[in-house]
Amino acid sequence: MMKEKVVLAFSGGLDTSFCSIYLSQDLNLEVHSVIVNTGGFSAEELADVERRAYKMGVTSHAVVDETENFYNTCVRYLIYGNVLKNNTYPLSVSAERVSQATAIALYAKKIGAEYVAHGSTGAGNDQVRFDMIFNIIIPEVKILTPIRDLKLSREEEIKYLKEHGVEMNFEKAKYSINKGIWGTSVGGKETLTSHEGLPDDAWPTQLTKEGSEKVTLEFKQGELIAINDETFDHPTKAIQKLQEIASPYAIGRDIHVGDTIIGIKGRVGFEAAAPMVIIKAHHTLEKHTLTKWQLSWKDQLSSFYGNWLHEGQFHDPVMRNIEAFLTNIQQNVSGKVFVQLYPYRFQVLGIESAHDLMSNKFGSYGEMNNTWTGEDVKGFSKIFGNQVVIYHKVNG
Amino acid sequence: MMKEKVVLAFSGGLDTSFCSIYLSQDLNLEVHSVIVNTGGFSAEELADVERRAYKMGVTSHAVVDETENFYNTCVRYLIYGNVLKNNTYPLSVSAERVSQATAIALYAKKIGAEYVAHGSTGAGNDQVRFDMIFNIIIPEVKILTPIRDLKLSREEEIKYLKEHGVEMNFEKAKYSINKGIWGTSVGGKETLTSHEGLPDDAWPTQLTKEGSEKVTLEFKQGELIAINDETFDHPTKAIQKLQEIASPYAIGRDIHVGDTIIGIKGRVGFEAAAPMVIIKAHHTLEKHTLTKWQLSWKDQLSSFYGNWLHEGQFHDPVMRNIEAFLTNIQQNVSGKVFVQLYPYRFQVLGIESAHDLMSNKFGSYGEMNNTWTGEDVKGFSKIFGNQVVIYHKVNG
Amino acid sequence: MMKEKVVLAFSGGLDTSFCSIYLSQDLNLEVHSVIVNTGGFSAEELADVERRAYKMGVTSHAVVDETENFYNTCVRYLIYGNVLKNNTYPLSVSAERVSQATAIALYAKKIGAEYVAHGSTGAGNDQVRFDMIFNIIIPEVKILTPIRDLKLSREEEIKYLKEHGVEMNFEKAKYSINKGIWGTSVGGKETLTSHEGLPDDAWPTQLTKEGSEKVTLEFKQGELIAINDETFDHPTKAIQKLQEIASPYAIGRDIHVGDTIIGIKGRVGFEAAAPMVIIKAHHTLEKHTLTKWQLSWKDQLSSFYGNWLHEGQFHDPVMRNIEAFLTNIQQNVSGKVFVQLYPYRFQVLGIESAHDLMSNKFGSYGEMNNTWTGEDVKGFSKIFGNQVVIYHKVNG
Amino acid sequence: MMKEKVVLAFSGGLDTSFCSIYLSQDLNLEVHSVIVNTGGFSAEELADVERRAYKMGVTSHAVVDETENFYNTCVRYLIYGNVLKNNTYPLSVSAERVSQATAIALYAKKIGAEYVAHGSTGAGNDQVRFDMIFNIIIPEVKILTPIRDLKLSREEEIKYLKEHGVEMNFEKAKYSINKGIWGTSVGGKETLTSHEGLPDDAWPTQLTKEGSEKVTLEFKQGELIAINDETFDHPTKAIQKLQEIASPYAIGRDIHVGDTIIGIKGRVGFEAAAPMVIIKAHHTLEKHTLTKWQLSWKDQLSSFYGNWLHEGQFHDPVMRNIEAFLTNIQQNVSGKVFVQLYPYRFQVLGIESAHDLMSNKFGSYGEMNNTWTGEDVKGFSKIFGNQVVIYHKVNG
Repeated sequence: MMKEKVVLAFSGGLDTSFCSIYLSQDLNLEVHSVIVNTGGFSAEELADVERRAYKMGVTSHAVVDETENFYNTCVRYLIYGNVLKNNTYPLSVSAERVSQATAIALYAKKIGAEYVAHGSTGAGNDQVRFDMIFNIIIPEVKILTPIRDLKLSREEEIKYLKEHGVEMNFEKAKYSINKGIWGTSVGGKETLTSHEGLPDDAWPTQLTKEGSEKVTLEFKQGELIAINDETFDHPTKAIQKLQEIASPYAIGRDIHVGDTIIGIKGRVGFEAAAPMVIIKAHHTLEKHTLTKWQLSWKDQLSSFYGNWLHEGQFHDPVMRNIEAFLTNIQQNVSGKVFVQLYPYRFQVLGIESAHDLMSNKFGSYGEMNNTWTGEDVKGFSKIFGNQVVIYHKVNG
Repeated sequence: MMKEKVVLAFSGGLDTSFCSIYLSQDLNLEVHSVIVNTGGFSAEELADVERRAYKMGVTSHAVVDETENFYNTCVRYLIYGNVLKNNTYPLSVSAERVSQATAIALYAKKIGAEYVAHGSTGAGNDQVRFDMIFNIIIPEVKILTPIRDLKLSREEEIKYLKEHGVEMNFEKAKYSINKGIWGTSVGGKETLTSHEGLPDDAWPTQLTKEGSEKVTLEFKQGELIAINDETFDHPTKAIQKLQEIASPYAIGRDIHVGDTIIGIKGRVGFEAAAPMVIIKAHHTLEKHTLTKWQLSWKDQLSSFYGNWLHEGQFHDPVMRNIEAFLTNIQQNVSGKVFVQLYPYRFQVLGIESAHDLMSNKFGSYGEMNNTWTGEDVKGFSKIFGNQVVIYHKVNG
Repeated sequence: MMKEKVVLAFSGGLDTSFCSIYLSQDLNLEVHSVIVNTGGFSAEELADVERRAYKMGVTSHAVVDETENFYNTCVRYLIYGNVLKNNTYPLSVSAERVSQATAIALYAKKIGAEYVAHGSTGAGNDQVRFDMIFNIIIPEVKILTPIRDLKLSREEEIKYLKEHGVEMNFEKAKYSINKGIWGTSVGGKETLTSHEGLPDDAWPTQLTKEGSEKVTLEFKQGELIAINDETFDHPTKAIQKLQEIASPYAIGRDIHVGDTIIGIKGRVGFEAAAPMVIIKAHHTLEKHTLTKWQLSWKDQLSSFYGNWLHEGQFHDPVMRNIEAFLTNIQQNVSGKVFVQLYPYRFQVLGIESAHDLMSNKFGSYGEMNNTWTGEDVKGFSKIFGNQVVIYHKVNG
Repeated sequence: MMKEKVVLAFSGGLDTSFCSIYLSQDLNLEVHSVIVNTGGFSAEELADVERRAYKMGVTSHAVVDETENFYNTCVRYLIYGNVLKNNTYPLSVSAERVSQATAIALYAKKIGAEYVAHGSTGAGNDQVRFDMIFNIIIPEVKILTPIRDLKLSREEEIKYLKEHGVEMNFEKAKYSINKGIWGTSVGGKETLTSHEGLPDDAWPTQLTKEGSEKVTLEFKQGELIAINDETFDHPTKAIQKLQEIASPYAIGRDIHVGDTIIGIKGRVGFEAAAPMVIIKAHHTLEKHTLTKWQLSWKDQLSSFYGNWLHEGQFHDPVMRNIEAFLTNIQQNVSGKVFVQLYPYRFQVLGIESAHDLMSNKFGSYGEMNNTWTGEDVKGFSKIFGNQVVIYHKVNG
């Protein structure tokens, strides 16, 4: 009799290794492991994961490269919106997890799997993202979550694997790292407290450049197209180039504490050199090229967009509507932004744009010009303050 | 015959010196000069301004110390709201100008002046703030704005003063500086362009400390009450203490470009060590102690509050309503925040609070606990994603 | 051995009658039934429910009158906020269910119950409201939901009750009605479709007055204090008086379709004469007495407040923060509102208030006055449009 | 020597007749009058205005029919957004005035006029709309506003016209009426007070139908395409058809008081049968077809869109961005809406749509189904309420 197929989101770590054995041996399923690359894995790392997968006896293993698609469907809007969750965190993990869940669901559909499995525990955000997105895209496929269901301790998982003849490095890393094109997260014992920062050696990227350097980012309709006048065939390449230049300065480190989908507070370290530089540079360009209310509305919509994405609700159609807004508003967000990089920090110096509303052809701040007169402003002040004047006359 | 009285907002600079002579000699008014201190002037500087005032022949000169009142009526809400205009600028000048205008209006009322005068040009925000606030608080007092009306060049003003026997230093400072308790602004030829940063020597406060230092801020219901366990009788003292500690690290420098009240873009440098550290520390404490929707709503209200304040609309009653919201929401924002200071930057390390919602008594992120089960989250995911599942089933 | 106590939310209908027998006989608990009156039950109806409770063999039955408390803690804010969900529905049921759940939780705490039970099915909003509020207020008390858990059909419940010797009217009402001080909901076979309206005889209140009548509502700081110059010792009395006058006109009928907490769309008829008249009258008074931005912000906050209340999240502290805002903003919302009642409709005629900003002392719309000149408005138009003029000059 | 050209917005009333004579005789300009029809004028009325124009000696008179363009560029978005200012007024006049100003500006550009003139007083909204839009579209053309500048009384204008040999009906209408495709405004002595309603005979459209009638509106992607199954080649035709059917019921009458651009409160009566029926029908269709957050965000954006349009800021690019959002969100807003018309009121009965999210295939409110279980909702309630449970545990 033919075995039923399960697609397993596989990272090569303890939990998904356990799942792999458990699904094939205890549940008697044909295991098809898959790993989705959103720009964080090297070819070497991917090959290593593949080796591990076959060592666990999977029937097939696939690598789905989502880097460009992740950018096209998600990261671009995080840039358009200058999205920083709670004004801090570029959503490095949240965003890519949603992209990965979608890719896995489509892969399960493609190979006609009856089951899809993920190795999330019952204590984090990822389970909700995977569950919801699978329910939306492949509602007919059953979801298996052995780690969440069996609630095994780390030791029990290791024991099980050893009993099934698996040999691997069972040592726990001091810090759990998640790396993608939009940043790297770092969790460890300090992030489980409220009061401790991360020690310097916890950061995957260490300071390796000295001095200071100026870098020029060029945006076209909100998208990063060139770094230091070098253009790229896809914005992901420009992001990676900038990452190469900026990350040796150990820029973009911070710790975020925020609301998880399941109602508790979660704390995480992150390093995101390119994302932070891009967002701040792009924002400065927008402050020069957009009107007051454009800036105000995109802030509000982007803040919601980031939160809703974080909560795994990427497939709510309101997200497409907001993307339409954000795309439309980028029409004139084109030009160069000059950024100075220093160890651990950077400074946006200024911009150059054909769409710069600060153009001194139309009046410089604090300098008189011919477009309007002091009399005009007197009249303006009178009318602009009229309602509040009336309010105070009426109410004393 | 008795002369009519005019209250003149006096800074001792060229423009207000011109106004002083012009009002008394050309308009034949009795000039009462006034300077409002919002925490930026030393006793020495104030004495110097007073000397200049009497040199211009004013009938009386007054110093109004608004520092504490400025905090009580305005700065506290900028802290409660973590207000950074366009996510950048702590509103150093905008906020204090509104406070000064209000204090001047009340002073004019107190001494029964028929006129009130300010030295603003027709090209900036301040004229609107002064005009509007005078119209609201002293609608019966006529506003005089010689600089705006006469449109004299700097040279013409100097010529006029010399002709009237005034001897003063007529040299123009390379950078115009405005200093108050909530930060210092810096304008110069670079800020009139879009692309140039400020040169290092333009910043009034230079780096004078080396290494790094940890500082502890303690908040009680949103107000800064202690620095490194030293308590103060008023939060302004704690702000000044923190400023002493942090400003030698040259922290909190940035350049902001934003929308002026009169529709053009304006660019300004600022340094604001204490304000930036306080806002980021306070925000971190809030991320630990407030619920998701508390954080979301206070962001929206605070953003409006800052913009509306910037536009001089402080006396719109909606500002009082928002203050009621912001005060109410600070009820549990109490605790300590640990911040590491470095040259040119700082890092919030963590917090300690009796109101910390991250308390691991109720579940740590990524760790299982007894309050809920994986089954609960499965159910949650199903219902939380229900509408979008239905949407995709209906719409294919 | 002493039996454990369960508090049962009891309405006297089939579901809660079943629960009553099931809890005492199958689960061997001591049943303490309770009904919470939010203004919808007459003394007679309450006595009838009590009779039924004792017929089901409950150990005790209690009536908690929450009418005034419901107003004090909730309805007042729905009025301050002119809350109509999706601009349609005054949240008649949602609001009172939250109030009832809170009262039941407090009652369970008071009598030291080990269990609390509600008769909700697994298909509606109420289960979530009850569950969540019990979890918040009495986390140590276990929740029992026999109807949801056993998934019995109506017929099975009747069979069970008959087997246990219960005699009652087992006929199903054609329309399910829920009545409280803030309106009456009506559900029936038409509301399960998307396209059918309710037939005329489905509405509990029929048209019994002819012609037309003018009624005067007086508000003090947002609260309804008098009807036709008759004052009342509590606003609930004023609401009931208005209901007496307006409901014979069959005013305030409508059908709402909206988002349930569980993600599906739900449709419900409602009649709410007094609530609709009060909200429209209060809103008109606000349009006269509040500034533009007061109106704008209270709309946004109130809309969220209504939705979050609807979703059972009344105990999120953000709700208290919003209430502080709404209370503060009502300071000047005092005066009379004149409303003309007609069969099936009403028209707000106008208002009279000492705080009316339309006071023609300060300029009537379309009529010139002395406060400002045409020149002032010319200047205003120039500056008010300045940024968009620049935008079009820059971008062509 | 050639006279300079002025384009005059001409309505045929006293003010614009005065302007016509004044511009040609006192200012020695060549007057080109223009009237913009946004669907409110009959051919007869337009011919009458033309006759009057030539009687005033204009060099040319033009009629610009903007009805379809007004719909295409503005009304469609008011429908997409269900825009009712302050939840009351469909912006009948505000919207068309912006459209007219734009059309006049383009006409002035086309004929190469040196001047453009409007007959607004200094006391209303229209002057700001005209001034701003002219400044944006034709910044090089000078604006003339004789009525605002000369501040003549009605009597002085009549005297002037008589002296210049003009014979016309100088009697003032009891109510000033402004009619367009999106509704008719009515101003009179009652609307200058806060407390009086309009007398029945003030309304231009009287009740002329009895009984009741059902009408079916069909929308395709948010646009009204058919009435009672009759399709039209442009939505304006469908609007006019509905107006024919509904207006004899005297539906859509109300009085609005709101904030003018110049800071005072303004009050106006309006009748808008088709607009009110369309907005309520469209809104109901959206409540069935859009997700919760789609409904929420479009409300917020639309409310701003309506207010900013009202304030004459139609050419702010943020309006285009919001239109992109609103267009995108209409993708599935297709289907039929059934409305019952009665004298003075109407009731939306229900809808039929292939995109109806209430589809009972996926669970009916209050009825169980197979998509989720009571257990799922238990889990949901636990997690959905988790943060507030924690909050209350932490804060007591």
